[in-house]
Amino acid sequence: MTASTDTGVSQELLEAGRRAYELDREHVFHSWQAQGPFKPMTIVKTEGSYVWDGEGTRMIDLSSQLVNTNIGHQHPRVVAAIQEQAAQICTIAPQHVNTARSEAARLIAERTPGDLNHIFFTNGGADAVEHAVRMARLHTGRHKVLSAYRSYHGGTQLAVNITGDPRRFDSDYSSEGVVHFMPAYTYRSYFGSETPEQETERALRHLEDMMVLEGPKNIAAIILETVPGTAGIYAPPPGYLAGVRALADRYGIIYIADEVMAGFGRTGQWFAVENYDVTPDLLTFAKGVNSGYVPLGGVAISDAIFETFRDRAYQGGLTYSGHPLAAAAAVATIGAMTDEHMVENAERLGREIIGPRLQEFKAKHPSVGDVRGLGCFWAIELVKNRETREPMAAYGGSSPEMNQVVAAIKAAGVLPFNNFNRIHVVPALNIPDELLIQALDVVDRALTIADGFVTG
Amino acid sequence: MTASTDTGVSQELLEAGRRAYELDREHVFHSWQAQGPFKPMTIVKTEGSYVWDGEGTRMIDLSSQLVNTNIGHQHPRVVAAIQEQAAQICTIAPQHVNTARSEAARLIAERTPGDLNHIFFTNGGADAVEHAVRMARLHTGRHKVLSAYRSYHGGTQLAVNITGDPRRFDSDYSSEGVVHFMPAYTYRSYFGSETPEQETERALRHLEDMMVLEGPKNIAAIILETVPGTAGIYAPPPGYLAGVRALADRYGIIYIADEVMAGFGRTGQWFAVENYDVTPDLLTFAKGVNSGYVPLGGVAISDAIFETFRDRAYQGGLTYSGHPLAAAAAVATIGAMTDEHMVENAERLGREIIGPRLQEFKAKHPSVGDVRGLGCFWAIELVKNRETREPMAAYGGSSPEMNQVVAAIKAAGVLPFNNFNRIHVVPALNIPDELLIQALDVVDRALTIADGFVTG
Ligand SMILES: Cc1ncc(COP(=O)(O)O)c(C=O)c1O
Ligand SMILES: Cc1ncc(COP(=O)(O)O)c(C=O)c1O
Repeated sequence: MTASTDTGVSQELLEAGRRAYELDREHVFHSWQAQGPFKPMTIVKTEGSYVWDGEGTRMIDLSSQLVNTNIGHQHPRVVAAIQEQAAQICTIAPQHVNTARSEAARLIAERTPGDLNHIFFTNGGADAVEHAVRMARLHTGRHKVLSAYRSYHGGTQLAVNITGDPRRFDSDYSSEGVVHFMPAYTYRSYFGSETPEQETERALRHLEDMMVLEGPKNIAAIILETVPGTAGIYAPPPGYLAGVRALADRYGIIYIADEVMAGFGRTGQWFAVENYDVTPDLLTFAKGVNSGYVPLGGVAISDAIFETFRDRAYQGGLTYSGHPLAAAAAVATIGAMTDEHMVENAERLGREIIGPRLQEFKAKHPSVGDVRGLGCFWAIELVKNRETREPMAAYGGSSPEMNQVVAAIKAAGVLPFNNFNRIHVVPALNIPDELLIQALDVVDRALTIADGFVTG
Repeated sequence: MTASTDTGVSQELLEAGRRAYELDREHVFHSWQAQGPFKPMTIVKTEGSYVWDGEGTRMIDLSSQLVNTNIGHQHPRVVAAIQEQAAQICTIAPQHVNTARSEAARLIAERTPGDLNHIFFTNGGADAVEHAVRMARLHTGRHKVLSAYRSYHGGTQLAVNITGDPRRFDSDYSSEGVVHFMPAYTYRSYFGSETPEQETERALRHLEDMMVLEGPKNIAAIILETVPGTAGIYAPPPGYLAGVRALADRYGIIYIADEVMAGFGRTGQWFAVENYDVTPDLLTFAKGVNSGYVPLGGVAISDAIFETFRDRAYQGGLTYSGHPLAAAAAVATIGAMTDEHMVENAERLGREIIGPRLQEFKAKHPSVGDVRGLGCFWAIELVKNRETREPMAAYGGSSPEMNQVVAAIKAAGVLPFNNFNRIHVVPALNIPDELLIQALDVVDRALTIADGFVTG
């Protein structure tokens, strides 16, 4: 039993949590929710890989919230850096030079692959995607954007249309210049592939067909999550991204890698593209850059695209671009990740603990259709039938079965990330081994419940 | 002479500033700039209404940066609140209840007019506008958005298209469902008006004509800065906004008030609409909500629109919606503004100091075509010729004449906000009277230079 009431949570904190719940229901309008029936969980305390709910129950955070707290909660070095920067300069307009911003840009540019040497800062992932697309459009003089189905790129109008997930349906006016193509997704191949090699070949042929049929001279950019995240953590099959890079080059299309979720160590490399030896022209980031301690995102820009804007004004911006407090948190986060070898640790956790254990789940639980991932970035796909691969919840929806599995995981003291028919295992990159193992034990037991729903 | 080298700026800070400048030119990609020729100013220290540049020269901040530091720089209460919240909980996903977020929502909802009781949090102004438009579209089932020329609503794709300013030209594909109309702007009337009363009548007739000709049943929303900011701080003539409200009601159109810049005390009321006795259906805010100490924005939502999303999911969101650190800064900012009577002070500064002094400028400087504003929100329009009203810099551009005036203001130790042919007087709401007077003396002297360029 991992759940426990921690004596560290005071009555005062619990009382404040209860009042916060009341006020939340009265005044807070929540993302992606019907506001009426929503019964949110209160969190009154966080530390490392633990969070405490409104009853004071301690839980292991296997979600990293929205897969952003890569360094865990309340890392002392980053908390101290925020406090120090707050004492110096909280905010300054983007047109003025600031030390924290300059240093963050340097540390990021040092880590991004290739010649992605120039950093445009935003507040989060959606605006990073919006600005990356604008840069590609202005650089190429073209308009269309190719984006994969089963992807997520953000909630603003252009970003949600680039998104290939049901969350765009309510806001889709087919007017954004976005064309969606079928991703390489071997487990549920849109091409009838039976092997990853086949999938790579067929998905690339499909992509080139789409480019030719849409007219390459109209296509500004192709945007791809390097490892699609919320849509299922389905890493690209071997050679796929190298093929995308080659097609982009052949047709003069800008390749944007969206690493908002996959970047900053999540896959066991600083950037996920490093796993596939490709360098995009633009790379979007957010989340892990400072673990979301202060809102921050951005675009890393190649020298060639920078040249376009050397003498021509870039017509885009925002009040908080390169916000000092956010930048200081990034400097400390990148420092902590480097000094504490968190990226290497993420790789090890995936290879030594999560990967083998998930393979074991697949071997023993008939409800497990597929397990996949790398680093601290893994998905378990639940199915009612392994033959037909019928998902435990339909695309875009939930199901009583999935709800029951997720509730069991929570009741046993673990906070999971789930989407449709999947449970994601996305802990902090520095989660202690024994906590991770405890959490995986909880998931293991919950999968037995899922097995009960298997019909095939 | 207000400029001075302050002994409080250490050699270390100046050295760090010089290194930051080098790194900035190497790695930071700036908003709205051609990157090559850009020579940014370094700011190494900020306090109250002072900032210190890279040479250690102290300047009076008459810009409030991008008109966001309404409480001035480094307000001790807000700095302490950020530090305390950082020690508690820096970040938590939007779906979990958090005490700082709940309290911020309560304090905002308490201050917004009418039944704007529900708060959706974003990271800044652009995404607030994007989500407000989405809410209006989903609520009405209509698509088009009416927006005024000479306005600014943000840098993301939809927001920049809603914008009626040259910053949208590079990103305008006429595909966003946005239709622009002529604003009420008495000094440069698009209707040939000679009085504010005429302007109100004609601008409202024009707006209704636009609604009828575009088809009211297609129009989801009309969005208006209550007092257009960067576009010229031209407050609406008497009765204009009441007329807009009535037209919106007549045709079932959602009225969105964009108060990203005008809100939170800037005009001498908590919200600018209070000056005109109207209540919008949606109100966007950012900047002043926490003076930009941590990135934050949002939408205040009426009960009627909330009802639409009671049982139907709102398909929009972002990772940092209701970020605890940003929310804690808002709680402290609103607390400080309230306890220190900053909103009332803004009203007094406008009435007793800025307004009379700007009238004096107009009386004595032939280069001053118009002065206007309220609270801590004022514009001086410079012209080459008072008769023809020929601006000192063309719409969308700068000019050597304007550059010289702005340079003179800076050289005398004042940081102004300028746009095209205008100098904006937009200090912190709590700027000490004597500093404000000093800064206005500097502007006064610089206007003598402008007078030299008058040809008419
Ligand atoms: C791959 C990817 N891109 C973009 C976004 C949008 O980021 P934000 O929520 O910060 O706008 C997300 C968020 O989950 C993401 O996972
Ligand atoms: C009226 C108005 N709306 C929206 C915005 C966009 O805000 P942000 O820069 O935070 O995206 C601004 C910024 O200046 C503004 O003045």
